[in-house]
Amino acid sequence: MDNQLQTMLKEKFGIVFKNVSLLEQAFTHSSYVNEHRNLNLADNERLEFLGDAVLELLVSRYLYRQYPDLPEGKLTKMRASIVREESLAAFAKECQFDEAIKLGKGEENSGGRTRPSLLCDLFEAFLGALYLDQDLETVKTFIQKVIFPKVAAGAFSHEMDYKTRLQEVLQKGGDVHIDYRLVKEEGPAHERIFWTEVYCDDRLIGKGQGKSKKLAEQAAANNALEKLAE
Amino acid sequence: MDNQLQTMLKEKFGIVFKNVSLLEQAFTHSSYVNEHRNLNLADNERLEFLGDAVLELLVSRYLYRQYPDLPEGKLTKMRASIVREESLAAFAKECQFDEAIKLGKGEENSGGRTRPSLLCDLFEAFLGALYLDQDLETVKTFIQKVIFPKVAAGAFSHEMDYKTRLQEVLQKGGDVHIDYRLVKEEGPAHERIFWTEVYCDDRLIGKGQGKSKKLAEQAAANNALEKLAE
Repeated sequence: MDNQLQTMLKEKFGIVFKNVSLLEQAFTHSSYVNEHRNLNLADNERLEFLGDAVLELLVSRYLYRQYPDLPEGKLTKMRASIVREESLAAFAKECQFDEAIKLGKGEENSGGRTRPSLLCDLFEAFLGALYLDQDLETVKTFIQKVIFPKVAAGAFSHEMDYKTRLQEVLQKGGDVHIDYRLVKEEGPAHERIFWTEVYCDDRLIGKGQGKSKKLAEQAAANNALEKLAE
Repeated sequence: MDNQLQTMLKEKFGIVFKNVSLLEQAFTHSSYVNEHRNLNLADNERLEFLGDAVLELLVSRYLYRQYPDLPEGKLTKMRASIVREESLAAFAKECQFDEAIKLGKGEENSGGRTRPSLLCDLFEAFLGALYLDQDLETVKTFIQKVIFPKVAAGAFSHEMDYKTRLQEVLQKGGDVHIDYRLVKEEGPAHERIFWTEVYCDDRLIGKGQGKSKKLAEQAAANNALEKLAE
């Protein structure tokens, strides 16, 4: 097995595989197996099947707990944007997994090492191998480093409209009056910053800033939602 | 909360919820919440989001371990046939969950209580609630009683072609000669039974019977696969 990979996993993530052959299998593409039939290797496809489900549960649990006021439809959209091919391929590259996978020559020559579907499968296969070798909580610790900070930073929240959400949450308890007040704007026209406050029945519940009035209002609504969730 | 449900869960599955409000939420349909806005209830949709992922992982893990020779594509097909709406609705009915869900009047009158999508969501919401209230292994114990025996009995294996699988498995170790021999047939034409044996390089590796030669061969291949997996 590629020692660089094992060293990186240990240093960057504190991960040491007990059964290194599982790690090897996760980094073995079917094209490599097909070109080395005599070695009797197993490719990473079954591990990918398992890892896909491990990831789905961990992401679901995280979103469920982190966004107690989001309705199911929005949780589902957010989950889909996290576990889709492009996202997982990007995580695989960040972890430098692309450098360690064993490919057949044909696959290598046709650019397999940078193909999003291959990298996405590799990422899932790694999670499946880690789950089998250790447990669900170890996989959680890993994706807590790799995926969750990006979710918390809003990288997958483009589906979400915080103002709508805030209205939904506040009006659960009956009719309320919500308004957004622009309290300050600063800077030259091309990089102007807006400061907004959001009030519920004249009580200040959130503050935000942004490069447009709209973005500042969204930020204020998000800030209010976070405070409500505390 | 419906005491009958709690009694049934305890007697039939040994399940006692610590936080009964989670169980209540799992059995509260959005139509009921909408008709009782003053009660400030939560419907079961977020629990369904979570339960869906819990089920996916447990089924994946089971199939991964139970069918060590099945390729990823077939595992995926089998998983899909287990977690699809019709299957989960049937499990919900078997557990008599349909009797316990709270519905709005409109939903009740339009036959919601027997609607597969509603029952499927209910089943997933129950799994989500059980997972939150206890843990993954408790949910596993539950579906080990409700779902896995049916999987083991082949209820979801119609996607699988055992002869193809057997060939794949046996030829991993190099070229072999597999043949199926009809050893007996009995009974009148309209309910004839066929007995088949399968040989690998002239060694008997499985036996099966069925209502046609084709089915008897599939049964023999399945029998051989089971023996190989032992």
